[in-house]
Amino acid sequence: MSLIFWLVPISALLALGFAWYFFRQMMAMDEGTDMMKRIATHVRKGASAYLRQQYKVVIVVFLVITVIFSFLAYGLGVQNNWVPFAFITGGFFSGLAGFFGMKAATYASGRVAHACRTSLDGGLRLAFRSGAVMGLVVVGLVLLDVSLWFIVLNIFIPETFDGYQLMTITAIMLTFGMGASTQALFARVGGGIYTKAADVGADLVGKVEAGIPEDDPRNPATIADNVGDNVGDVAGMGADLFESFAASILATALLGAAAFMGYGLDVQFNAVVAPMLIASLGTLLSIAGVFMVRTREGASQKELLRSLGFGVNMSAGLIVVASFFILYFLNLPNYLGLWGSIVTGLLAGIAIGQSTEYFTASAYRPTRKIAESSQTGTATLIISGVGTGLISAAVPLFIIVVAITLSFLFATGFTFDMGSLNYGLYGIGISAVGLLSTLGITLATDAYGPIADNAGGNAEMCGLGAEVRARTDALDALGNTTAATGKGFAIGSAALTALALLASYFEEVRMMFVKFLDRPQELINGTPAIDAEFIDFVHHYEVHLMNPKVIVGILLGVMAVFLFSGMTMNAVGRAAQKMVDEVRRQFSSIPGIMDRKAEPDYARCVSISTKGAQQEMMAPSLIALLIPVVVGLLFGVPGVSGLLLGTISSGFALAIFMANAGGAWDNAKKYIEEGHFGGRGSEGHRAAINGDTVGDPFKDTSGPSLNILIKLMVMASVVTVGLAVSYAMF
Amino acid sequence: MSLIFWLVPISALLALGFAWYFFRQMMAMDEGTDMMKRIATHVRKGASAYLRQQYKVVIVVFLVITVIFSFLAYGLGVQNNWVPFAFITGGFFSGLAGFFGMKAATYASGRVAHACRTSLDGGLRLAFRSGAVMGLVVVGLVLLDVSLWFIVLNIFIPETFDGYQLMTITAIMLTFGMGASTQALFARVGGGIYTKAADVGADLVGKVEAGIPEDDPRNPATIADNVGDNVGDVAGMGADLFESFAASILATALLGAAAFMGYGLDVQFNAVVAPMLIASLGTLLSIAGVFMVRTREGASQKELLRSLGFGVNMSAGLIVVASFFILYFLNLPNYLGLWGSIVTGLLAGIAIGQSTEYFTASAYRPTRKIAESSQTGTATLIISGVGTGLISAAVPLFIIVVAITLSFLFATGFTFDMGSLNYGLYGIGISAVGLLSTLGITLATDAYGPIADNAGGNAEMCGLGAEVRARTDALDALGNTTAATGKGFAIGSAALTALALLASYFEEVRMMFVKFLDRPQELINGTPAIDAEFIDFVHHYEVHLMNPKVIVGILLGVMAVFLFSGMTMNAVGRAAQKMVDEVRRQFSSIPGIMDRKAEPDYARCVSISTKGAQQEMMAPSLIALLIPVVVGLLFGVPGVSGLLLGTISSGFALAIFMANAGGAWDNAKKYIEEGHFGGRGSEGHRAAINGDTVGDPFKDTSGPSLNILIKLMVMASVVTVGLAVSYAMF
Repeated sequence: MSLIFWLVPISALLALGFAWYFFRQMMAMDEGTDMMKRIATHVRKGASAYLRQQYKVVIVVFLVITVIFSFLAYGLGVQNNWVPFAFITGGFFSGLAGFFGMKAATYASGRVAHACRTSLDGGLRLAFRSGAVMGLVVVGLVLLDVSLWFIVLNIFIPETFDGYQLMTITAIMLTFGMGASTQALFARVGGGIYTKAADVGADLVGKVEAGIPEDDPRNPATIADNVGDNVGDVAGMGADLFESFAASILATALLGAAAFMGYGLDVQFNAVVAPMLIASLGTLLSIAGVFMVRTREGASQKELLRSLGFGVNMSAGLIVVASFFILYFLNLPNYLGLWGSIVTGLLAGIAIGQSTEYFTASAYRPTRKIAESSQTGTATLIISGVGTGLISAAVPLFIIVVAITLSFLFATGFTFDMGSLNYGLYGIGISAVGLLSTLGITLATDAYGPIADNAGGNAEMCGLGAEVRARTDALDALGNTTAATGKGFAIGSAALTALALLASYFEEVRMMFVKFLDRPQELINGTPAIDAEFIDFVHHYEVHLMNPKVIVGILLGVMAVFLFSGMTMNAVGRAAQKMVDEVRRQFSSIPGIMDRKAEPDYARCVSISTKGAQQEMMAPSLIALLIPVVVGLLFGVPGVSGLLLGTISSGFALAIFMANAGGAWDNAKKYIEEGHFGGRGSEGHRAAINGDTVGDPFKDTSGPSLNILIKLMVMASVVTVGLAVSYAMF
Repeated sequence: MSLIFWLVPISALLALGFAWYFFRQMMAMDEGTDMMKRIATHVRKGASAYLRQQYKVVIVVFLVITVIFSFLAYGLGVQNNWVPFAFITGGFFSGLAGFFGMKAATYASGRVAHACRTSLDGGLRLAFRSGAVMGLVVVGLVLLDVSLWFIVLNIFIPETFDGYQLMTITAIMLTFGMGASTQALFARVGGGIYTKAADVGADLVGKVEAGIPEDDPRNPATIADNVGDNVGDVAGMGADLFESFAASILATALLGAAAFMGYGLDVQFNAVVAPMLIASLGTLLSIAGVFMVRTREGASQKELLRSLGFGVNMSAGLIVVASFFILYFLNLPNYLGLWGSIVTGLLAGIAIGQSTEYFTASAYRPTRKIAESSQTGTATLIISGVGTGLISAAVPLFIIVVAITLSFLFATGFTFDMGSLNYGLYGIGISAVGLLSTLGITLATDAYGPIADNAGGNAEMCGLGAEVRARTDALDALGNTTAATGKGFAIGSAALTALALLASYFEEVRMMFVKFLDRPQELINGTPAIDAEFIDFVHHYEVHLMNPKVIVGILLGVMAVFLFSGMTMNAVGRAAQKMVDEVRRQFSSIPGIMDRKAEPDYARCVSISTKGAQQEMMAPSLIALLIPVVVGLLFGVPGVSGLLLGTISSGFALAIFMANAGGAWDNAKKYIEEGHFGGRGSEGHRAAINGDTVGDPFKDTSGPSLNILIKLMVMASVVTVGLAVSYAMF
């Protein structure tokens, strides 16, 4: 084990240590008045209750899958006896990250509201550092799990053939991502349904029917709504990016082991640890970045945004420099080209963020046009949002196309020659790692959003003064902007990660193939053997576009995406319906709610959302888990390959369409509320509220759930590759 | 030329003859009162004006493309000197079909309204037979063009190598479909924008703001709305299916020439004419079917539907029997299997129709659930429609997957072995021909819809009695049902046709490849040469899924679909906005419109819709034409292959989502209007009207335009295959 590797566990421990430090720092703050404490406790209890319930379901699912995995002696990947353990730790660590992140967020929000009673800067720093707990726990636990497994497997897996050890180790480690994916699936789908059932239910009865404002304590669903922000936007988002972070590192490690096999063990080892080291450096820079975020009292929204941006951009800028030195030090062949791939990934992330902002912020034409179309009613507003959302999906697709083309070409020295394929795929993988390297701080800005939102809710419910409310509003508005770009980032990184995973899927198939033929020396890249081997491989598995099994696979991949998002969409509708009924029931059967003489039954709404989410998340989740296995058993590797490409491409597009349309409707409403096109209370405003409600499940349930779908389906295919290779019906 | 081939031109002439006969029969009927004549003339003039305007634009586009084709001496398909001529005739015949079909429809509607003054049966028969004019002209002109070209090319193209003549002829003939595609693109996109701009504009100001009923003569946009039904649903639908009919026959002919090369010239010839003969027999059976449609006075909607269904089903049932005998007579190897493929195609068509009906008719749960969600407002109604629409897209995808798998397996004798690939692809092609064979009568039921709709409009505007109105309403309601299933049929057949076209694209690439290598004998299937050749081919063009160019292509294909549908969606929004402004202007500036003392300026609204459609159709159309060429020049055959698969798969799914969501909202509104969930005038009804308006561009503009997009992009790739093969940058 080379010395430099130890940077990975050290960064992991540092990240966890600083997370603990920020958490203690936050816990030491005052939570404010009794009323504030009571509200915060309500939210905290609701969130914990939900998480407990969700983990119960997830544990059962994990047990079932683990048992199945244990019996599928020959059906799994290269070293199937390790798979169940890797699977479980992935799920466990991801769950742990969600648990800590949400604990921090729910303890923080009341304290942030209280801090805002004194100063804006205090509020911002507290909210942001509490968000950083989530960010650092996620990256810390990923790096910890990666390093532990890497150490253990290096001890247990023997070297049978030059370079085969690292291929086997990285192939096993990849299945750790399957656990994280499965955990993330339930977190995103369940959390997404929870939060929007509560939100839509609270809005429809509270705002529209009863005419009381957002976060009014008289609304029985208001606590559930605040809980929803935490389980959806904190725990769900965290699990999603935990998975992307882990999978991009692990897939790239495998691709590195494959690309540099036959270059000597040192070079191969360096190629394997390169993604881990880049992620570690990015983590250290994220910690530094967190300390750079501060602002002055009375700062404008622009200044607030700039102060957040300063921390994020500093980390990103420094990782560009740091990764150059790492690659230089590792002395990989064509290290300059690989550095180009990393920079490409980072630039792609920024470009996708910019495009998200352009299509969803009311400062730009598209959202203003949508707001304008409210003047002819809800229907034209919806048409306009759908049209713009569809167009907006084209831009990130184009960015990803440019990014994978460039990162491939940089890594191969500007050729598409198939002899260089493996270097190019490694380039794509490492560009995903580059994009995600500073996740520690990016995720902090994401988790900051719901904390600020909840702080605002707390301030509103406790009737804090107008000055305090103005400060929490400023923080909240900032959170909406970071939420939109955060979603773009999550989807973009999911797409790049999924493509890297897809490449490693092919690598695993190739390993199965040569294992099957007992010719491991043919795994070596860059030798004449690869060419014949490769033709054999393509011909043997017929993963070409003339094969109807591939075409069928692509169609089924698109089918899975549409089915899954339709089901999650309808799930929100049904769960929200139950919430509407409950809120209506409380308004009519509990006398005195409206004149604040009686407290509504918050807990019942929380439990309705929890149950609704649990019931509704099962069917779409099972589809996501089963389709790759079934397609593999029917149509083998060609079918699965097509399936994954169909899922990734259409899932990515649909996810962006949904996230951007939802974000644009949200901001079009806010733009009108600022006094444009008739302002609050006008007919146009009513149309915009409808648009915003339609957008809720778009942007917070179905859209983000698709991130997981595209990654999980590749993961499930990677893990069950042996089934498709050995037992395919056709 | 074998004797049996002459059945094709004879069927063509018979179809055209009967079209002429039905047209004369219709023209001989009385058009009713002066007022009825005046209204009908308004609509007729508007439709002609639009078509003239559109043809002007299309002629320019055709000239430009033809000139480009003439200069691309080496950039086109196998025999590039014929391409420009084939391209032009395809466009010309398609345009002619649209012209005659719309003439018949616009002459018919007033007469149908008048016929309904006497009897329901008279109205139904007249409307249906006038629709049959469109159906028979379309299939007649396709078969005429196909036979003329086949005869001419058989004279001019020499036999250079056994079986190479027919491959060359069919490859040239395929480019005839490119002309039809281009014509169809403008007809669908332009017509789709026209009809919904008028419809949305008329509804928003007339129904919602002014509170006057549908088709009220006081609404200035009402004539434009009626014109729109003709240009969108008659001319647009006709051009769409003209293209599918032509392309499925021509692609299958090429696939037949390729699959049965080396089997002797007789067998190859029979394989080439088989799709033409099946289409011819289907056409003869369609004529017979038209005569079977009749009903009794006071028939219920169910009976009306049954009488239409009787004609359609009889034709479809008989083609199953007839195609067996044709294949038996042609004595193709494995004719039983091929017959299985045809039956599969027919059953897939029926299954897709059933699924469309299930998801869009108010007799079933999904639409009733959507109607129910109107009780909590517009937002939940939209969410529910989007959710159900997304799910509904999964079903036809699954049906198509089963259909292509089975038709492939039937044709190969139940193997996916790549040595049998060409037989399987021929099987997929011939299943598409089977699905479309009775297009003559299916299209008659489609064109019937807008004729009945316009007859109702005429009756309403002329204030005919309640009894007449009841009859036209019955016919119109029937038209709505046939329209929904017609859309499902159009999309399903477009998908199967596009897949057959994709297979022929690969065939053309293979031809370019062997031409390039000067080894035409290697085109022969079923010999050991194919295997080596095939590996060479896959390896040379790298059309496998590990190639990043393929992946990039797939992503770009999905991008094209989202961009195109977003643009058409926004185009409707903008054009409708202009219509809204104009109608508002007329209401306020022309005194006496409301108390029927002054006639509104219908012509101005017609001209606004015309101009709007013309302006808005250019950008999306250019994208559809240019993307395949640009991707070919950048990423070559692998990029284009991926592009086409991405476009077909996601375009198909999005088209069905849009068509079904739109149809379900439409019928949910009608269900509420029947008195459910509060009925007319309730809050729920208002929500349902909003849903219906959102659905308008979904189901009548963007959705159907995607049918063309997926076919046209394959066509454009087929025609410019030489560019991708010879000039690709990477």
